[in-house]
Order: sequence, then C-alpha cells, then structure tokens
Amino acid sequence: MQKLQIIKIGGKIVNDGQKLDRFIDHFTQLDHPKILVHGGGNSASRLCKNLDIPIQMNNGRRITDTLTLDVAVMVYAGLINKTIVAKLQEHPCNALGLSGADLNIIPATKRSGTEIDYGFVGDIQADEINTYFIKRLLDEQIIPVFSAITHDEQGQLLNTNADTIASVLAVALAKNYEITLTYCFEKVGVLHDEEDEGSLIKHMTMDYFSELKDDGTIHDGMIPKLDTAFEALKRDIDKVYIKHAQNLTTKIGTELAL
Amino acid sequence: MQKLQIIKIGGKIVNDGQKLDRFIDHFTQLDHPKILVHGGGNSASRLCKNLDIPIQMNNGRRITDTLTLDVAVMVYAGLINKTIVAKLQEHPCNALGLSGADLNIIPATKRSGTEIDYGFVGDIQADEINTYFIKRLLDEQIIPVFSAITHDEQGQLLNTNADTIASVLAVALAKNYEITLTYCFEKVGVLHDEEDEGSLIKHMTMDYFSELKDDGTIHDGMIPKLDTAFEALKRDIDKVYIKHAQNLTTKIGTELAL
Repeated sequence: MQKLQIIKIGGKIVNDGQKLDRFIDHFTQLDHPKILVHGGGNSASRLCKNLDIPIQMNNGRRITDTLTLDVAVMVYAGLINKTIVAKLQEHPCNALGLSGADLNIIPATKRSGTEIDYGFVGDIQADEINTYFIKRLLDEQIIPVFSAITHDEQGQLLNTNADTIASVLAVALAKNYEITLTYCFEKVGVLHDEEDEGSLIKHMTMDYFSELKDDGTIHDGMIPKLDTAFEALKRDIDKVYIKHAQNLTTKIGTELAL
Repeated sequence: MQKLQIIKIGGKIVNDGQKLDRFIDHFTQLDHPKILVHGGGNSASRLCKNLDIPIQMNNGRRITDTLTLDVAVMVYAGLINKTIVAKLQEHPCNALGLSGADLNIIPATKRSGTEIDYGFVGDIQADEINTYFIKRLLDEQIIPVFSAITHDEQGQLLNTNADTIASVLAVALAKNYEITLTYCFEKVGVLHDEEDEGSLIKHMTMDYFSELKDDGTIHDGMIPKLDTAFEALKRDIDKVYIKHAQNLTTKIGTELAL
C-alpha cells in the first residue's frame, strides 16, 4: 500500500513567522504524498479581543457564536491557510488550501444534545469524509492544506478541532494508504515533567497514558490531544507520533502504541 | 469548442445575505462548466475600521500595507470565499474556493515603478495563469470560486482587483473554451442616467464608451470596470455582459461589442 503522511501543526508554530518558516522547510523535505492540517491557536482569540467580541467559555470550553465563527473562518480558512499555502508554493510545493466545505470534503454535524450549547461547532466522522477528491489531489502531486473549518452541507460553516480533523482524515484514508500521523507542536513530545525537555516519553501505550493521567503527570490540553491520537491508532493507523515541529524529519518524539 | 461561463459578482451583493442567496440560486441554474469570481466590496474596509487600521488612500487609490493585506486575505479568501462555497454546496454544487496561491493558479507581480507605492498589490497577466488545473477541475464538474487574493511565488500574498481576475482568467482560458464573461452588480447594466434603471444601454461599443466617458455620463468606478471588460473582449472573449445579479439567467443587461 502507498504511504501517506498526515501532519498536524499547532497554533503556536503557525502564529510565529520564524517557527512556521522552519517547519515548512522540514515539511517540504518529506516524501510525497502528504497532507497538512493546521490549527489557529490564540490568533482567533486575539482578533476577537481586538474586535470587542466577548470570548464565551463554559467549563473551559469555548462557545462559538456567530461572530466568533466569522472570526475563526477569517483567521483559520483565510489568513493562516493562505499564508501557509503561499509559503509552500515558494519552495515550490504545489499546495491547495481547503476548508471542509471545499469539494464537500469534510461534512460535519452541528453539535447538539449536549448540556451546554457549544454554538457553531461541527462534529465529524471518518465514514463521512469524501476521500475521492483527496486521493485525486494526492495523485496529482498536490499537497492538501486543511484548516479546521467544516460545514453542515446546509450552507452553515462550522468550527472543528484541528487535532480531530487530522485524526479523522487519517482514519478515513487508512483503507487506501499506510498512514503515519504526526502531531507537531512546540515541545519535544509527551514529557514526564513539562518543564524538562529531557524527560521525553519515547513510547506511550494506552495503559501508560491512563496511569499518567491518573497521577496528574499528563493534564489539561495534552489529554484530549492524546485521546484523539489514540483514537486514530485504534482504527488502523500505522504509526502515530507527537513531535516538536523542528523534529519532523527526525525520529525524536513520542511514538504511541496500543 | 466547449462553452464556459465566467461570472464576477461585486461586493454589494456578496455583503448582503439575501442578495447573495438569490444570486446563488440563479448561478446554480447556469450550465456547467462555470467559474465564479467574487469581490469583497467594503467589508474589508469595515473590518479595518473596527480594528483601527487606518485606510490609506492616494488619489482615490487604496494603499495596501501589511495590516490591510491581512484583513483582505481574512475577508476575501476566508469569510466571503468560504461562505459562498458553503452556500453552493447546499444546492448541491461542488464548489472549490481558491486564492491565486492555491495550486499556483494566479501568480502575480507586486506593482512597482509607479509614482505611488500601492503596497501589496499584485498585477497579473493572462499568459501567467496556470490553466491546467482549472481545466482539470472543470472536467471533474467542480466550480472554482476565486477570491481576489494572488501571490508572487516568493511566499508573499497580494491583493488584486476582482474585475481584473475575471477578465484575465477569461483571456487565459479563451484558447480552450468559448467564453461568456458576465460582470454582475447591483444595477441592471450600464445606464445613461444612473438614477434611472429604465435608461439601460443594451449594447455598448468601444466608440460609444469613449463618447460617454468624455461627456461624463460614465464616470468613477464604472470606467475601470468597462476598461477591464473591453480588455477581455479585445482578446478573443466571445461575449461580455454587465448585468444585475438577479438577471444573470436572463438576457437583460448591457452587452459589450468592439
């Protein structure tokens, strides 16, 4: 089976011009075919703040109202996505920026039935992904660059977690490709001590993850990230890594195992 | 030769939800293949104002500095482009939103050598357009939806006039398709008296345009629009129309002739 690399980069890299340039240098060195998924980090929140749009949170979860969604679409599908595409074209790598609405690649369902109304948040499923056009693009040596914006097929754009998009795309494409899924962020991998880059956990099993969750070693944003990553691993993804963006082309990082 | 319709819609339609929905209804009724190019109107200026980004003008021409470019990319390539794509998918029409950086379809050159420094403004030429991927998309029954953002192939995004993008795309594709180019806006066509929708000029020749320019009947923004439209007509475009967005599927409007 043909190999495919799916790389997700986080907002802290995307929002730093120098870090982004360095990441893109590494990304362009990877063999084709490959897919890039990007987050947006705090840039949407910053723009909300500058526009006096209140950031609504409920139990640590953001509520995406109409104005917040507009900002997310502007920042993620607009500025960040096109900035990355232009930088890739410079190399030259033939990139195509996509939201989930484009080519109807990622249909989503507005989250409902939860205690809290999260607003315009889209939940996605691997068997809903339209893999036909992704395969056609990859066959043409094109690099799809996904922002975390989806749609409900009824004309409504939705905001979806970028880690989830990377994981769900991987699962959807696993019947056609032997997939390596790599989450890149600004640390060397999952750490025993988050202040010590020397405390890298090179191999992480699900049991070990549970243990480290229970004792508080792994906490906050790393928990949903690892949950999402393990979700992919459980569903036929060959290899899943968590790496520093600068180490993309090296073996340094955390490899997940069931 | 296969027919192709290239439709440009202006900012005043794009910025009005109801008008946009009506336009999209008409647009979806057109035969395939077709391309949509959209402007952004004053929505980028509004966002600049809300963000306290000063709007710099010189002799009535906008200067695109770094912050203004970011706003243009967010609004044109982000919010407006993806809103249109999501609305088209609802019908369902398989749309793909594009900037000129995506697939390197519209390489541009940063304007230079002018008396005024316009900033991040991109000039484009028909023989630089990468028509290969446009043809591939149209063959797959995909509807390309272009925002007015281009790039210099060196990693820099640029702002380009949307009327010009429609005209230059038409010229670039004229060797492969028999093209109808239609500029849609919020008036019934070119008018003798801009306050009187009954004063429609049904046929406009270049000589007549010169005459009406000289006597002041045609003025302001209509002059560059018609210049751009005639430019296309001079370069092998079959038919060029200026129409009300609501009249897209009718014969009502101004037809240009050399």
